[in-house]
Amino acid sequence: MKKTAARSPDRFAVILAGGRGERFWPLSREHRPKQLLKLLGPRSLLQQTVDRVRPLVPLKNLLVITTAAQAPAVRRQLPGLPRENLLLEPVGRDTAPAVTLGAAVVGARSPTAVMAVLPADHVIPDEKKFRQVLAEAFDLAGRGQVIVTLGIPPTEPATGYGYIELGPRLPPPHGVKAYRTPFHRALRFKEKPDLDTAREYLASGRYRWNAGMFLWSFVTLTHGLETHQPELHAACRRWFAAATQGPAALTRVLTREYPEINRISIDYALLEKAHNVVCADADFAWDDLGAWPALARHLKTDADGNAVVADCVSVDAARNLIYDARSKSRRTPVALVGLREAVVVLTDDAVLVADLHRAQEVRDLVRRLARSDRYRKLL
Amino acid sequence: MKKTAARSPDRFAVILAGGRGERFWPLSREHRPKQLLKLLGPRSLLQQTVDRVRPLVPLKNLLVITTAAQAPAVRRQLPGLPRENLLLEPVGRDTAPAVTLGAAVVGARSPTAVMAVLPADHVIPDEKKFRQVLAEAFDLAGRGQVIVTLGIPPTEPATGYGYIELGPRLPPPHGVKAYRTPFHRALRFKEKPDLDTAREYLASGRYRWNAGMFLWSFVTLTHGLETHQPELHAACRRWFAAATQGPAALTRVLTREYPEINRISIDYALLEKAHNVVCADADFAWDDLGAWPALARHLKTDADGNAVVADCVSVDAARNLIYDARSKSRRTPVALVGLREAVVVLTDDAVLVADLHRAQEVRDLVRRLARSDRYRKLL
Repeated sequence: MKKTAARSPDRFAVILAGGRGERFWPLSREHRPKQLLKLLGPRSLLQQTVDRVRPLVPLKNLLVITTAAQAPAVRRQLPGLPRENLLLEPVGRDTAPAVTLGAAVVGARSPTAVMAVLPADHVIPDEKKFRQVLAEAFDLAGRGQVIVTLGIPPTEPATGYGYIELGPRLPPPHGVKAYRTPFHRALRFKEKPDLDTAREYLASGRYRWNAGMFLWSFVTLTHGLETHQPELHAACRRWFAAATQGPAALTRVLTREYPEINRISIDYALLEKAHNVVCADADFAWDDLGAWPALARHLKTDADGNAVVADCVSVDAARNLIYDARSKSRRTPVALVGLREAVVVLTDDAVLVADLHRAQEVRDLVRRLARSDRYRKLL
Repeated sequence: MKKTAARSPDRFAVILAGGRGERFWPLSREHRPKQLLKLLGPRSLLQQTVDRVRPLVPLKNLLVITTAAQAPAVRRQLPGLPRENLLLEPVGRDTAPAVTLGAAVVGARSPTAVMAVLPADHVIPDEKKFRQVLAEAFDLAGRGQVIVTLGIPPTEPATGYGYIELGPRLPPPHGVKAYRTPFHRALRFKEKPDLDTAREYLASGRYRWNAGMFLWSFVTLTHGLETHQPELHAACRRWFAAATQGPAALTRVLTREYPEINRISIDYALLEKAHNVVCADADFAWDDLGAWPALARHLKTDADGNAVVADCVSVDAARNLIYDARSKSRRTPVALVGLREAVVVLTDDAVLVADLHRAQEVRDLVRRLARSDRYRKLL
């Protein structure tokens, strides 16, 4: 694949771990968002994200962007992560400023580097297949001409995801015999569609889910910002300069400048505007765990389709998600009678019972809690 | 109403408090059945039953029939009840043996007495109206000719109740000018009907709900048993004799004999067979609280029809019953999202989430628990 190992640029990964994960309340909280939860097995989603990429990227090149509130938990979960690789956003400003910050630090360490931007809260059960695609995406992005995005073949007409329209498949770059992953020109980025449109996308076979995973060389990214987001480009130059002076200098600059940056997603800021975007046809199972029902898809279910992480006893209950996250001394049996398509979540300080089809609205509930002094301790 | 106070027979009340109340699990348990629960306000249903009848019946004439398992709680709840007025069934044998036992004790104390049989677990919000009907029923039954049963005008085509078909209205007995309560001949007792039949009953205006409340003189009852249930009549004579010797003698006889008695309801044993049954048209609100949804009818509801005994916060939830009976240190907010017509009950050792329309099946759940060693502590 690579001509010689010596020519390969340094690989970095920037893990975006600043999400709030309101939709997994009452398990997720401000100080413990979705990516820090051990929803599936003994490792949190953040830990799984790191585990997944580590065979391709050394720990010293792995940057995690998060908030001050979440930093202690992130440090506990990633004890091997060098302290200076944890980058704190003074405030949340969506993904474009976070990516710019990650890029500035990457560039300061290795201006010829290639970097992957990876959300910390997604589920990808087949690590091996993920790494096979990622390794080829690193290789392609590392050649410096294109922005590579990973597109997931849709399995249903989801209305909660963005889509990427595939253009023609690209030939392998000069010097590469062939990639196993098909790479296509990315024609268009589509925001979350309505159901009819999503069905058309699915039927056409020409659309992929935008998984929010991007790869580019530092040089390609900064060129993209220079063209499409001059203010972010200028910020990137300043943060790069600060980063070369060390973590303390960077923190000082960020504290001053970051709150002034406009809130904007990297999709909108760059991906939708750039003309050199390539989409890997990333044929691995992927889930962004948008809300509680998504979790049920990754848990074993009983014969009636109940996904149960609890001591559950039931009479004719079907297609429910029951999740008891209380501490051991407070855990009790949960009994269901005739219940259908509900979500029941128990923590030490709250109980949630929701219609499975309305679980997105847990976010509205959290906002309601935020408006009341009485419930502020539940945020 | 009465000619002279001197001629009035002694009034007794026999309160049947042996029910298991499985359908209020997880709040009701073997040692703490429905009648002992403070479901509505600070007084349990048993206490409310006693409160309701006490202005008509002195405490010394008030007998409570229960089981050994429930006796300590009953004593705690009724501290003024004379010890010998608590009658313990060695085993449950349905209502006919319990009524016979009560009658034997009543007869031993006052052979000319009139007695009311009252279930301990019903809800009757209008005490005054209840007592007005009961006083007249005592009077009529005390004259010794008839068995008086209280029939409640149905408000819906309930399929969970027995019905009584009214015959012609009876004139007041000799010496009584008029009762305010209409008394009718009871033509027929009907078991729980199907919905179409229940609708016919409701539409006809000729049927009343069988509330399981009966009044008779000791003499009338024993005559009825003699005719229709000779074995129970014989038992009544033996228990009467034992009761005249004191509580210890009675307990000895019951321990030996009670388990051998056939399980049979007083409705089936006597009421359906006797020809001298009168039905009071008892125009007060009444509810036997058959299951959790019945409770919701007696609680205040919010604008969306939710009955809430909990710290509840919700987004578009309607027609639910939320009942948090956990001890104070374990109580937490309960959040609902999009939930409709569900029952959520929380105790320190269990959680129940049920479809409101399937709440009768909580009984099946309790039977399932009983089949498992693991859950036996929840019974």
